[in-house]
Amino acid sequence: MSEKKRKVILTGDRPTGRLHIGHYVGSLRERVVLQNSGAFDDVLIMIADAQALTDNWDNPEKVRSNIMNVTLDYLSAGIDPKKSHILIQSQIPELPELTQYYMNLVTVQRLQRNPTVKAEIKLRGFSEREESQGTPVGFFCYPISQAADITAFRATVVPAGEDQEPMVEQTREIVRKFNSIYGETLVEPEILLPKSAASRRLPGTDGKAKMSKSLGNCIYLSDDEKTVKTKVMSMFTDPGHLKVSDPGKTEGNPVFIYLEAFAGEDAPNAKQLFEEYAPDYQNLSEMEEHYRRGGLGDVKVKKFLNNVLEEALRPIRARRAEYEKDLQSVIEILKDGTKYAENIAAQTLSDVKKSMQINYFSA
Amino acid sequence: MSEKKRKVILTGDRPTGRLHIGHYVGSLRERVVLQNSGAFDDVLIMIADAQALTDNWDNPEKVRSNIMNVTLDYLSAGIDPKKSHILIQSQIPELPELTQYYMNLVTVQRLQRNPTVKAEIKLRGFSEREESQGTPVGFFCYPISQAADITAFRATVVPAGEDQEPMVEQTREIVRKFNSIYGETLVEPEILLPKSAASRRLPGTDGKAKMSKSLGNCIYLSDDEKTVKTKVMSMFTDPGHLKVSDPGKTEGNPVFIYLEAFAGEDAPNAKQLFEEYAPDYQNLSEMEEHYRRGGLGDVKVKKFLNNVLEEALRPIRARRAEYEKDLQSVIEILKDGTKYAENIAAQTLSDVKKSMQINYFSA
Repeated sequence: MSEKKRKVILTGDRPTGRLHIGHYVGSLRERVVLQNSGAFDDVLIMIADAQALTDNWDNPEKVRSNIMNVTLDYLSAGIDPKKSHILIQSQIPELPELTQYYMNLVTVQRLQRNPTVKAEIKLRGFSEREESQGTPVGFFCYPISQAADITAFRATVVPAGEDQEPMVEQTREIVRKFNSIYGETLVEPEILLPKSAASRRLPGTDGKAKMSKSLGNCIYLSDDEKTVKTKVMSMFTDPGHLKVSDPGKTEGNPVFIYLEAFAGEDAPNAKQLFEEYAPDYQNLSEMEEHYRRGGLGDVKVKKFLNNVLEEALRPIRARRAEYEKDLQSVIEILKDGTKYAENIAAQTLSDVKKSMQINYFSA
Repeated sequence: MSEKKRKVILTGDRPTGRLHIGHYVGSLRERVVLQNSGAFDDVLIMIADAQALTDNWDNPEKVRSNIMNVTLDYLSAGIDPKKSHILIQSQIPELPELTQYYMNLVTVQRLQRNPTVKAEIKLRGFSEREESQGTPVGFFCYPISQAADITAFRATVVPAGEDQEPMVEQTREIVRKFNSIYGETLVEPEILLPKSAASRRLPGTDGKAKMSKSLGNCIYLSDDEKTVKTKVMSMFTDPGHLKVSDPGKTEGNPVFIYLEAFAGEDAPNAKQLFEEYAPDYQNLSEMEEHYRRGGLGDVKVKKFLNNVLEEALRPIRARRAEYEKDLQSVIEILKDGTKYAENIAAQTLSDVKKSMQINYFSA
């Protein structure tokens, strides 16, 4: 434990559906940057299937099938198995074992106060009154299991959105409590918040606040060219922008929000995108200005967005095609990543048991 | 799973103190009978250290040291490692892994309604208001971890007191829910309630309802002859029974409650005990009658009780002395028992993962 402090990233997703451009903009793109930055000793990306089961326990098939989808999305988006380790949560038995001990260090009352858990319970409509429709205990306890994930791999950096701050704070509390009772053992993580506004959550193609599979308003990383074009061309824009000559709103307009994320000032290839696909404008601000004062039609903007998205999606699609040719190699990547991660978790668990003095047979 | 239904007993104790004659009368004595009955394919006795940590997390040393105490108590009391397997809960990682999946099948609201949990929370004085003094999540969830224990070892019979009925019912609910969602996998257990009134909980030597280490009112299986005698001779009796000639009360009188448990009509050696140590009486009823009508002194009854207890404790003490000569052999017994139990738990977990279709790498 007193070895020099390694810089370790843990991030991941619940495998409940294919990843879409919202995931890409919100986290995946940044993970690739972090992976390639050389600033971290370890980058671990966890497919949180056990967590997904806490509110999908009646549909393990959905979780199972999406493990492969999400892995392909990762690899296609540029996660490099030579630099990052992709692991499957449920295949690491050390995690529930750590959870078991951390569960003693958190009170029911503390969990009930967690604002993220509160919001998520409300979102899922778990009933307070009807017992059988209530909150699954596994779901209620997921901040604790998340603390096990983070600490098992000795993650120091957890890239996540602001809404996840209470979760990381819960982990930090557990670490401090554990270390104060049993002696210095666990590493306290820091949250890494998104740098720019462009990494905020993308709305759905229909203008609804969130992309959601059930609403059918997502553009998936695995969508083919034709599907993307159809989705883009039928996107919701400013409903008051009826004629080309009408002034239009860019604020809250999903087409412009997407452009901000893929061709805004933070996009490294913004200049080329405009030179190639919209040479009338130097940058997005000029295009937005034109739209706002009137005279720029939705079809034209959407065609530009489609080109912009294709620039991002084309290499992703090409990598996917390569990996899909050899799915067995993808399984091997998962096996290797999981094995690598389990070794670290096993060492942490061993330290934990030693600190708690419950390593009876090995002491 | 379709193999012929094995009859398996799971029972055990939390290692938070040495076992006393209350444990002996309440469960240990009956376990030896069950073990020797030949009616069971497997007898598993679990030292529930992980459960003990749910409300002793700040004192793992207490739990650790009592594992050896309790094991010696078991072996001394007649648990035969050739017939029963003694295992340490925390050394079986399959248990928290099963717990993790069962936690999805129970709602927070359902746990809150469990009368045993409610009573235990009240008993321990966990606060509803003060968050840091609240109920540890691990403690709150122990009915689920208990379901993991019972089902992991495919126990069909759980010997326990009536107060444990809601716990076993919770296990049965989890089994039914699991099997209905994922397919027939787990075995539903039955509770085995104490047969006779003599197996009820013994009061303390001071007449308080419960034996408790902190009250110093226990007679331990490991107490030496002199200590037992001192404790018996200073026992609380009927405070109204001042002179030998006074009529005395036997009801609620701990001396007579102990005699009922060790020399009552259910005691197989009752006849010999009276012949040898109280030949004036045929049986306990006659002695009780004499006490009630007056003329039988407490000292005389206590001396008889001391002899009666010594008949039970002498072979226990002798076996303990043997085992204490070779503590390494006791550790081996624990290792063997734990290994045996883990093999069963691993098979159950494998079945569980197969049924849930989350055995990704082995499918």
